[in-house]
Amino acid sequence: MASRNARPLLGGIEAGGTKFVLAVGHSPQEIVARETIPTTTPDVTMATTAKWFSQHGPLVALGIASFGPVELDRASPRWGHITDTPKPGWAQTDVVGPLGRALACPVGFDTDVNGAALAENAFGAGAGDGSLAYITVGTGIGGGLVLDGRPVHGAGHPELGHMFVRRDGEDFDFPGICPFHGDCVEGLASGPAIKARWGKTLSELPADHPAHTYVAGYLAQLCHTTFATVAVDTIVLGGGVMQTPGLIERVRERTFAIGAEYLPGRSRQEVVAPGLGQDSGICGALILAERAFEGETD
Amino acid sequence: MASRNARPLLGGIEAGGTKFVLAVGHSPQEIVARETIPTTTPDVTMATTAKWFSQHGPLVALGIASFGPVELDRASPRWGHITDTPKPGWAQTDVVGPLGRALACPVGFDTDVNGAALAENAFGAGAGDGSLAYITVGTGIGGGLVLDGRPVHGAGHPELGHMFVRRDGEDFDFPGICPFHGDCVEGLASGPAIKARWGKTLSELPADHPAHTYVAGYLAQLCHTTFATVAVDTIVLGGGVMQTPGLIERVRERTFAIGAEYLPGRSRQEVVAPGLGQDSGICGALILAERAFEGETD
Repeated sequence: MASRNARPLLGGIEAGGTKFVLAVGHSPQEIVARETIPTTTPDVTMATTAKWFSQHGPLVALGIASFGPVELDRASPRWGHITDTPKPGWAQTDVVGPLGRALACPVGFDTDVNGAALAENAFGAGAGDGSLAYITVGTGIGGGLVLDGRPVHGAGHPELGHMFVRRDGEDFDFPGICPFHGDCVEGLASGPAIKARWGKTLSELPADHPAHTYVAGYLAQLCHTTFATVAVDTIVLGGGVMQTPGLIERVRERTFAIGAEYLPGRSRQEVVAPGLGQDSGICGALILAERAFEGETD
Repeated sequence: MASRNARPLLGGIEAGGTKFVLAVGHSPQEIVARETIPTTTPDVTMATTAKWFSQHGPLVALGIASFGPVELDRASPRWGHITDTPKPGWAQTDVVGPLGRALACPVGFDTDVNGAALAENAFGAGAGDGSLAYITVGTGIGGGLVLDGRPVHGAGHPELGHMFVRRDGEDFDFPGICPFHGDCVEGLASGPAIKARWGKTLSELPADHPAHTYVAGYLAQLCHTTFATVAVDTIVLGGGVMQTPGLIERVRERTFAIGAEYLPGRSRQEVVAPGLGQDSGICGALILAERAFEGETD
């Protein structure tokens, strides 16, 4: 196939804990083939990935938006590794090295949520805005940040789900399920936290169940603190839990209610669903590839 | 004086709610004259400021690190204004316009805490680091952020003191004093919050008073959430409350205890006192002047 097409091909991987989404495209929005494979062992998953790309290449660059935590410091010998993940077999796995060697092309690498934030900022719900946070609420709660068009790194990378929140009203009994922090936002409002507490998903609970208020309130604090910390224009809320009917409206209403109109720039800020639907992550991976192709290093 | 000196002079203003610190220097670290004047009405304070600089100039550029909230969007007609401050007489005050016209030079403008963060990142406790937060704990709690050498703006600017925190242990009685948010960090751990609650400053309370634990715990959550959100290398804690003996050690210990070694990059992160002592703000103002002189626009 590739031999019949003279236009350069970018490759993208949205590397998740349960599946890898693979795509090749002429640009981040022009995907010509895609595949989804299960995340099994690193050896098998990476070999399958490399094989698929070699069948759909050659690539001029590869972008990987990965589950974490990951090493993003290019000066570190561990750049491109997944580091201390609890996912069996994946801790300290070099993701970039084997794939870069197998496909013989430059590789861009970032967190899955920074990738999604790049995509939503470039083509999605925050297109044209200066800064954006992409927060996913699902098996865990994670967030990526793009400020002035650049993904935020630092000593590590954003881990927005692990901030603490003010407990809501009389809601003090549930200790939270985060093994590190107990009742951080992830420990209180992620999918598994909701299931552990009420035995059902949020969508399965009746509309008048207090779970809806609690979860929306904790996610609203996450949004408020994100606005208060980095003053982004847009917060995009994605992930499975956010599919719950009415949830994003509740979170939006609570965010601006608890912020009390205080924050400068409030009138320019919004809390919205992803503009790219399920494609934020893979589109972001292709943006990382495009940047690597252009020689940008973060 | 100026006529005897051929080297270009930068001017800096640390514009605070109680005083303006004015300085001229050949570089941010080479101050040749400084003055402190009380913050009275905008007209009087700005006229006194302009007169002092005209006596110590001419300036090639002026930098203003101001109390807020302020408008930092250069595309806005209100760029360079202090906006919705509760300080009597100062709401909607154009700070940049009159001074830029009076002194006939380019003006750099940012928040006081972004200025201090720039200075600590360039010359102080975080010199050489990629990213830094400067948090002041005093009459209010504010924070500025520098990522990859650039101050963080956005729809507005960071307002770190207004994030919410998990209430400590059995500490639920005090409602907090923030007129907007009640028990946000500023409402619980600023100087006035401590005074309102216990009738004394933290330094005046005995070493075994629970206030020390509560305040350190809330400030530790502020630090943890700042690390979790933007993954800075360094958090610098300044301001009057931080002069309390032992407080910074307590905050540091609690920050890393509640973070539970979870955050990626943890081993590279630190919580420290200002390296520039009381001069972070005025040094930052001079950096803003230097940037304006060099044509940088944020």
